Amino acid sequence: MAADSQGFLRRWHAIVEARDIPALAGILAPDVIMGPPPYWQRFEGAEMVQHLLGLVLEAIEDFTYHREWVEGDELALEFTGHVGDVELQGIDLISLDPEGRLSKLDVLIRPENAIVALRERIRPRMLAWLAERAEPGPG
Amino acid sequence: MAADSQGFLRRWHAIVEARDIPALAGILAPDVIMGPPPYWQRFEGAEMVQHLLGLVLEAIEDFTYHREWVEGDELALEFTGHVGDVELQGIDLISLDPEGRLSKLDVLIRPENAIVALRERIRPRMLAWLAERAEPGPG
Repeated sequence: MAADSQGFLRRWHAIVEARDIPALAGILAPDVIMGPPPYWQRFEGAEMVQHLLGLVLEAIEDFTYHREWVEGDELALEFTGHVGDVELQGIDLISLDPEGRLSKLDVLIRPENAIVALRERIRPRMLAWLAERAEPGPG
Repeated sequence: MAADSQGFLRRWHAIVEARDIPALAGILAPDVIMGPPPYWQRFEGAEMVQHLLGLVLEAIEDFTYHREWVEGDELALEFTGHVGDVELQGIDLISLDPEGRLSKLDVLIRPENAIVALRERIRPRMLAWLAERAEPGPG
């Protein structure tokens, strides 16, 4: 079954528009992988990617989509925004699984100082979240 | 007249495959602009962009195209390669003018250390070329 790319895009844009991070859970494949701008290594798993995407959407101000390309299950979505006073242009390269869920997302941005600004804003929050997860629960 | 995107792509891929930098002159609009990975500011003019593209193609080893998206005159071409031992994934975001020539090219790559490696490899050559151009000719 071919993925419903247009259906995915409607849900994706509604989620991004509303910054509705909890709703991401419904459109991520369980084994989704995400390649972020600063690092080569990809992050794996729906919980991890949902959290990281939330941090990215929180960090990039005036996040706005522009050109959009669709070829079957493969999508490319251009965006602009800024981190503080550092302007940026980016692209989401998206692969959908046969159920129309996001199975792979690579995020590329330019210029270099925008990647640095984004990394510096996100890294402490990601580390805090990872430390929190690693702690044993009460009792 | 709509641009002949498929015709452009055939010529583009042949040029990149052969590293035929002089042939780029035939597919660049005179007022082409290029947004490179490290800098926000765009480079302008066919001579400048031809030279910069040549340096990029020379700097990225094992340059290989993968996914390709076409929507009318707007193209997105994914590539991979490496600079020394630094692997990279990139995308060319291309706009064609009505004559089917490249009028705008933005190049985004990840991860951050690949942008640094690319910039460090290209910058001295670009500066040398700019200095050479600025010198008055003999006589």
